[in-house]
Amino acid sequence: MALLVQKFGGTSVGTTERIEAVADKVARFREDGHDVVVVVSAMSGETNRLIGLANSIMDEPTPREMDVLVSTGEQVTIALLSMALQKRGCDARSYTGSQVRIVTDSTHTKARIKQIDEQHMREDLNAGRVVVVAGFQGIDERGNITTLGRGGSDTTAVALAAALRADECQIYTDVDGVYTTDPRVVDSARRLDRITFEEMIEMASLGSKVLQIRSVEFAGKYNVPLRVLSSFQDGEGTLITFEDEDAMEQPVVSGIAFNRDEAKLTISGVPDTPGSALRILKPVSDANIEVDMIVQNVGEDNQTAFTFTVHRNDFRRAQEVLNAVAQELGAREVTGDSKIAKVSIVGVGMRSHAGVATRMFEALSNEGINIQMISTSEIKISVVIDEKYLELAVRALHSEFELDKPALKEES
Amino acid sequence: MALLVQKFGGTSVGTTERIEAVADKVARFREDGHDVVVVVSAMSGETNRLIGLANSIMDEPTPREMDVLVSTGEQVTIALLSMALQKRGCDARSYTGSQVRIVTDSTHTKARIKQIDEQHMREDLNAGRVVVVAGFQGIDERGNITTLGRGGSDTTAVALAAALRADECQIYTDVDGVYTTDPRVVDSARRLDRITFEEMIEMASLGSKVLQIRSVEFAGKYNVPLRVLSSFQDGEGTLITFEDEDAMEQPVVSGIAFNRDEAKLTISGVPDTPGSALRILKPVSDANIEVDMIVQNVGEDNQTAFTFTVHRNDFRRAQEVLNAVAQELGAREVTGDSKIAKVSIVGVGMRSHAGVATRMFEALSNEGINIQMISTSEIKISVVIDEKYLELAVRALHSEFELDKPALKEES
Repeated sequence: MALLVQKFGGTSVGTTERIEAVADKVARFREDGHDVVVVVSAMSGETNRLIGLANSIMDEPTPREMDVLVSTGEQVTIALLSMALQKRGCDARSYTGSQVRIVTDSTHTKARIKQIDEQHMREDLNAGRVVVVAGFQGIDERGNITTLGRGGSDTTAVALAAALRADECQIYTDVDGVYTTDPRVVDSARRLDRITFEEMIEMASLGSKVLQIRSVEFAGKYNVPLRVLSSFQDGEGTLITFEDEDAMEQPVVSGIAFNRDEAKLTISGVPDTPGSALRILKPVSDANIEVDMIVQNVGEDNQTAFTFTVHRNDFRRAQEVLNAVAQELGAREVTGDSKIAKVSIVGVGMRSHAGVATRMFEALSNEGINIQMISTSEIKISVVIDEKYLELAVRALHSEFELDKPALKEES
Repeated sequence: MALLVQKFGGTSVGTTERIEAVADKVARFREDGHDVVVVVSAMSGETNRLIGLANSIMDEPTPREMDVLVSTGEQVTIALLSMALQKRGCDARSYTGSQVRIVTDSTHTKARIKQIDEQHMREDLNAGRVVVVAGFQGIDERGNITTLGRGGSDTTAVALAAALRADECQIYTDVDGVYTTDPRVVDSARRLDRITFEEMIEMASLGSKVLQIRSVEFAGKYNVPLRVLSSFQDGEGTLITFEDEDAMEQPVVSGIAFNRDEAKLTISGVPDTPGSALRILKPVSDANIEVDMIVQNVGEDNQTAFTFTVHRNDFRRAQEVLNAVAQELGAREVTGDSKIAKVSIVGVGMRSHAGVATRMFEALSNEGINIQMISTSEIKISVVIDEKYLELAVRALHSEFELDKPALKEES
């Protein structure tokens, strides 16, 4: 019998009917003899309703009062879910972040968890109760209510699992697991039974928005096995875990991620002197524009070219900043393209396999797709291509790395 | 410059526009140099919305979870009002019951306040901030969220005023004060500048539902001057205070209260022996029926008659109980009437004035109104009459005791 932390998001608890369905699910785990701590978000729409009330009073409400306001959303859900469990004869007790106590720093609206008091929860679990905890919220050391920011309920679940040394942290979502790539793009996309934390982080940051990256990092750091499952259908979901060194064979590539939200900018004819990268990128970051990929070509004639990608919404602003920089540096020109897409192959298996990049580039070349930028990390290779080839590229790579076939180790 | 505790109920904070109007009012007091603690209820309709959610899950939700649920209503209001004050450049900070800390017993949904920690509030007041506190809620000693039951926000305001030794506790409502009687019945009904706690308690329990009686008792016990004012119009309201022994002249009668919600029951031909009152009333109280007035006539032929009044909704049930009792006691018969009304004159001044009852009875007799029951206390005389004479009786008494004219001391 295991100790499970289960997290249900806003859509899963969007109506009282859905809250009852969650109670059915949780009660079954309890009947099977598991100890269960449930973390819930606000009912979908509720947080936006509360923010709407605040904004009808002022455009930028003080963060402290914002936290007092929006933290009521999860408090409503914990009470309703506890009632629904009690109705099923399943003893349950609700806790706000303050009651647990989930102590955070004082950065209102995006606080970080510092410490969790597990004592109350442990007592309730020992007494056979389901513990229902409000996600997304805590208190600082002076007793002010804080919230953790977007995706904070996932973080709460992982942090509770770590504090309680739970056997598994289960994140229930509206998808039934992590896929080799987006099934809307590739019909044969397959749900992964397992994925490593590192792969998941690369997948998430590249646009597979199943889990908040912060909670995955947190789970990795504290050795919490994380599972993504569907709230609405039964199934094993995807277990996010550590690299399994005993696995018969790691797949070379676990998944294909992609992103259409980027635009690229190139500043060319830059004098190839120390510090020029800094002099180009600092004004961009000072303008609060986030930069994703950065590529610098090897210089010729003491000149070099910088290319980087930004979010498409920041494209115009980045161009303006760069034009000013170019003048200052005496660079030749600034060019840009917002019709690009980034495609990445991700897999811990590529660490031990040479030639993965070659296979990737060959597969794209066979389809006549030109590669505009390349960037690599230990377990990921990303390329930027013309946006119109995105679907074609993803399908070609999905097939090249045999992601439509179950991995060997899963057959054994 | 005074320390004021101001309480605004659900209607006064029913929309964000009204919350802004409350902020205007509070900010003016702050600008005048007063220290202000504001207590607010949930936005009108919100508590019922939350109860509706709970009832869609179960008919009788557990009281602990009910308190977790409904306490979010006031938490939303404190955040919104604090924002509205900050928007006006008026520094403010919100507190839930748990944050203050308002410690109560563990009787969920109708807890009683045991202790209030004033330290945080005092620090904020010293720093020039308005303190905004959620009414109606607290925590018990184990950290569970509790609520105080109906009218609990008034009680919170009075308790905070007592703990802070405030100069005045101001209750803002949708009426502009306490009247000599209901202005809908008597055109010339007049707002009282002052009324004593004792009079207010008699008026409230008799149906003038301006303030929850519990908060008035609480204010009396802790010497907190209480003022009833209108949220929507300016004015001095009515100050509820201790008997003013220096006043040039107390009015004999301060107000006329009435109640149409009662029914009377008579059991006659009861053997006049010790214990028969108990044997009649115990079964009634065992059936959870509350009894208001009780009158026993002097017996003849070793027989007596009991008459008492109950809420009209309990009339049929009380009749059934009484029929059984009559048989058991060998009483002659049970009769009843639900078309009655109770009219009371209230005033601390009647303590020192003889003949008040005579004046009352004469005024009624002059109008041809028959008196069915009489009950008296130190500062109150109540009569039961035929319901159809209610308005006539109230007008006759209002005029007899010159309530349409300002009291002498107010002219001086």
